[in-house]
Amino acid sequence: MNDRERLRHLLAEISDLERANALLGWDQQTCMPPGGAEIRGAQMGTVGRIAHERATSKELGALIDRLRGESSSLDPDSDDARLVEVAARDFDKAIRVPSDYVEEMARVTAAAYQAWHEARQASRFALFQPHLEKVVDLLRRYVGFFPPADHPYDVLLDGYEPGMKTAEVQAIFEPLRGRQVALIKAVAAAEPVDDSFLHQPFDENVQWKFGVEVATKFGYDWNRGRQDKSPHPFTQAMGTGDVRITTRVDPGFLGTALFGTMHETGHALYGQGHAASLDRTPLSDGASLGIHESQSRLWENLVGRSLPFWRAFYPRLQELFPQVRGVSLDRFYKGINRVRPSLIRVEADEATYNLHIMLRMEIEIGLLTGTLAVKDLPEAWNARMKDFLGLVPPDDAHGVLQDVHWSTGGMGYFPTYALGNLLSAQLWEKIVQDIPNIETLASQARFAPLLDWLREKIHRHGRKFRPQELVRRVTGTGIDAGPYVHYLERKFGAIYGLKA
Amino acid sequence: MNDRERLRHLLAEISDLERANALLGWDQQTCMPPGGAEIRGAQMGTVGRIAHERATSKELGALIDRLRGESSSLDPDSDDARLVEVAARDFDKAIRVPSDYVEEMARVTAAAYQAWHEARQASRFALFQPHLEKVVDLLRRYVGFFPPADHPYDVLLDGYEPGMKTAEVQAIFEPLRGRQVALIKAVAAAEPVDDSFLHQPFDENVQWKFGVEVATKFGYDWNRGRQDKSPHPFTQAMGTGDVRITTRVDPGFLGTALFGTMHETGHALYGQGHAASLDRTPLSDGASLGIHESQSRLWENLVGRSLPFWRAFYPRLQELFPQVRGVSLDRFYKGINRVRPSLIRVEADEATYNLHIMLRMEIEIGLLTGTLAVKDLPEAWNARMKDFLGLVPPDDAHGVLQDVHWSTGGMGYFPTYALGNLLSAQLWEKIVQDIPNIETLASQARFAPLLDWLREKIHRHGRKFRPQELVRRVTGTGIDAGPYVHYLERKFGAIYGLKA
Repeated sequence: MNDRERLRHLLAEISDLERANALLGWDQQTCMPPGGAEIRGAQMGTVGRIAHERATSKELGALIDRLRGESSSLDPDSDDARLVEVAARDFDKAIRVPSDYVEEMARVTAAAYQAWHEARQASRFALFQPHLEKVVDLLRRYVGFFPPADHPYDVLLDGYEPGMKTAEVQAIFEPLRGRQVALIKAVAAAEPVDDSFLHQPFDENVQWKFGVEVATKFGYDWNRGRQDKSPHPFTQAMGTGDVRITTRVDPGFLGTALFGTMHETGHALYGQGHAASLDRTPLSDGASLGIHESQSRLWENLVGRSLPFWRAFYPRLQELFPQVRGVSLDRFYKGINRVRPSLIRVEADEATYNLHIMLRMEIEIGLLTGTLAVKDLPEAWNARMKDFLGLVPPDDAHGVLQDVHWSTGGMGYFPTYALGNLLSAQLWEKIVQDIPNIETLASQARFAPLLDWLREKIHRHGRKFRPQELVRRVTGTGIDAGPYVHYLERKFGAIYGLKA
Repeated sequence: MNDRERLRHLLAEISDLERANALLGWDQQTCMPPGGAEIRGAQMGTVGRIAHERATSKELGALIDRLRGESSSLDPDSDDARLVEVAARDFDKAIRVPSDYVEEMARVTAAAYQAWHEARQASRFALFQPHLEKVVDLLRRYVGFFPPADHPYDVLLDGYEPGMKTAEVQAIFEPLRGRQVALIKAVAAAEPVDDSFLHQPFDENVQWKFGVEVATKFGYDWNRGRQDKSPHPFTQAMGTGDVRITTRVDPGFLGTALFGTMHETGHALYGQGHAASLDRTPLSDGASLGIHESQSRLWENLVGRSLPFWRAFYPRLQELFPQVRGVSLDRFYKGINRVRPSLIRVEADEATYNLHIMLRMEIEIGLLTGTLAVKDLPEAWNARMKDFLGLVPPDDAHGVLQDVHWSTGGMGYFPTYALGNLLSAQLWEKIVQDIPNIETLASQARFAPLLDWLREKIHRHGRKFRPQELVRRVTGTGIDAGPYVHYLERKFGAIYGLKA
């Protein structure tokens, strides 16, 4: 084996271990009997530790060093050149974090997750507070392993949105916030929209069936995937040939399974769309969480909450569910797009969602830099909720305790949700230029041209390009909130009859 | 960590990797979409190779060597003493087999499996022959890695039934064969038994439901397991807290799912019954395949094909399936115990099953020692089928190509099925002594005393004792065919009205 073959071999082994662990995680959420939990934790710990050992091995480091020099003779966009570049980036990050830190973080977050769970059930932040303090301390130590950045939060952000800077995100979010708040106010003053017909009993199996039909029409390949139920919907790829989605079905609300399935299908189409030649390399993954979210949001919102889509699918929905036969297409379309400030992020509509994110990002920065103490968190949360959305949570469970992320050490993650939203609209503007009849096609349930476009421009590349580079290649600019704001104002202006 | 802790740590990591791979295998058979096959093979190969590397590491060898001396100060039956003993045995075997041999065997059997599959479909042994020749050559090489044994087949047998000798198995089988052949002849001359009512349409979901009820009554713990469908039923343990069974349902024959579920439940009760303290050690497994099969056969046959069992369960079966309401308990009992020589091992009844095994063992010995050439295999097979069971296969698919085992290199495996049969009856004799009202309990669907007995005598020990040692501890003797012969003669004598 030459160096390049050896590199591929070592990276393939690491990928195999990581994907084996991914399957163990998928099974844990979907199939595993309760009695299997304890030993599964040990098994995932071992496989993860061995993957980490190999991802930080001396041999791998030396190989990457030798190949880094050679790569200059390759086409810089070739798989081989990009593989060395990405492997080098992953390696450089991985070796900065000592393994005793990794183990301490695992221990602290395991306890913090448990505590968060209990605290949320009891709606008592105090139960979670000491654990979150430890997590924040550990995250500060984590930042210290890296060279000084413009902003300490950059280091956390880089774990989810490589190369993205705090200042860039703030520059995107700041003007956006004002526009979204203004839109919400205008909507609040307008004639309300009725969505009561979405809240009635819907047979779970029929909901499932309709979701499968939609996913199939979107282009999800069932020979390379499957769908299961899980309490928290997610998508997991074991390779491009095995990308699985899960969903949750609410027997009393149509929206959960319907839009959840579209959302996860969007993620899964990305995973099924990486070039098969990237399998068993670190390139076979999404470019970032923001890019991943742009795909799920595009299918869920730009397609799935659009009028053209429902021109195609509403007759079928009415066929399956007699209880909506008396609801006109227009009323249905407005109902699924109802805007209402709410307490819970995962239930938020398109017009309010990003505000939940901005609130969290401000708080995370405050905690990390020390301008906000963990003990003052509920107060800070509630104040911002009042400020951003005009609501005050009745208790911690509906406020600061609602999300799992912090208990797992996942700070810096939230902004990617909003970046994904923005990017979905930005991509859509480009799509409309390239496929001018996209709305007609959607109203005929013909999505192949859209999927082909996404495959060609985004999916097939996997992690070959950094997110910013990818966005620039596709749209000609960096991430830009403009298209999303226009999309919101146009869409909700029409639905709520707002003055332009 | 002291040496003993370090040993446990290293063995736990090996166990974690092996059980992670077990889950990947379970998923492959039950959940995986077709597109996942290729990368799954690579993932399982990597995890298996790393497990093997660690199972043959210098550190592990040195640790075992040091502890082997110390063990003399421990209670020889303690977990710690047995752990060193079993780890040493596993290590000594593993290091004898060079890793390039392991890789060659994996490559050859992957192709042989494929070829066997095609050969069976085409019913043409010639397609499989060159592959089987390579497998036999490799198995001869394998034997050569070990010190000379009394018989080369001993080395293969040891992989499945540790410590068992070819001569011992032959000494058990030889007299057994005559008795079973005589019984079959007597049955053939008697009034035939009707089982046509088992062959009619049975709703698959209701079959499933009844199987679940039976497994539950047997004592299968659903909090530590689950049941899925798969083309070939099997049981897979990820640990004592996660022991899964699969079954196959035939919509036109009641026996497949019914007895298949009981069989796998028997295996699973063994797996759920190992002491939890043995988890993540090599002791958390069956003592041998023969012992494992004794558990599945005991529940399937000694319990599940007995009259007391059906006194308890037949009313429920009739409730679920109106189509057997006109069939008396006596006719049903006789029907599920119908004896008829047949071509296919997995469909064989209790009276003929072992003959299928004896035929295979003779052939395997012939191939290994060179007294039988692979090319002459179909002829040798058919001659023995005529001799043992009075039947000649119409084609290779119903003869020499029916089983997968040889294509995977699994020679020496078959005898354990028959040893399990013998042992199930041998254990039952002991159980009847210790629980004299066992038949009354069975007729009341009360199986807790039986399960407790098996847990105490067999399950909890896992691999702590060698199979022969375990049998001797429980029954006072070695494996003995006497109880099985008496069981067959008594049972089928009564069913077919034979003279004693």
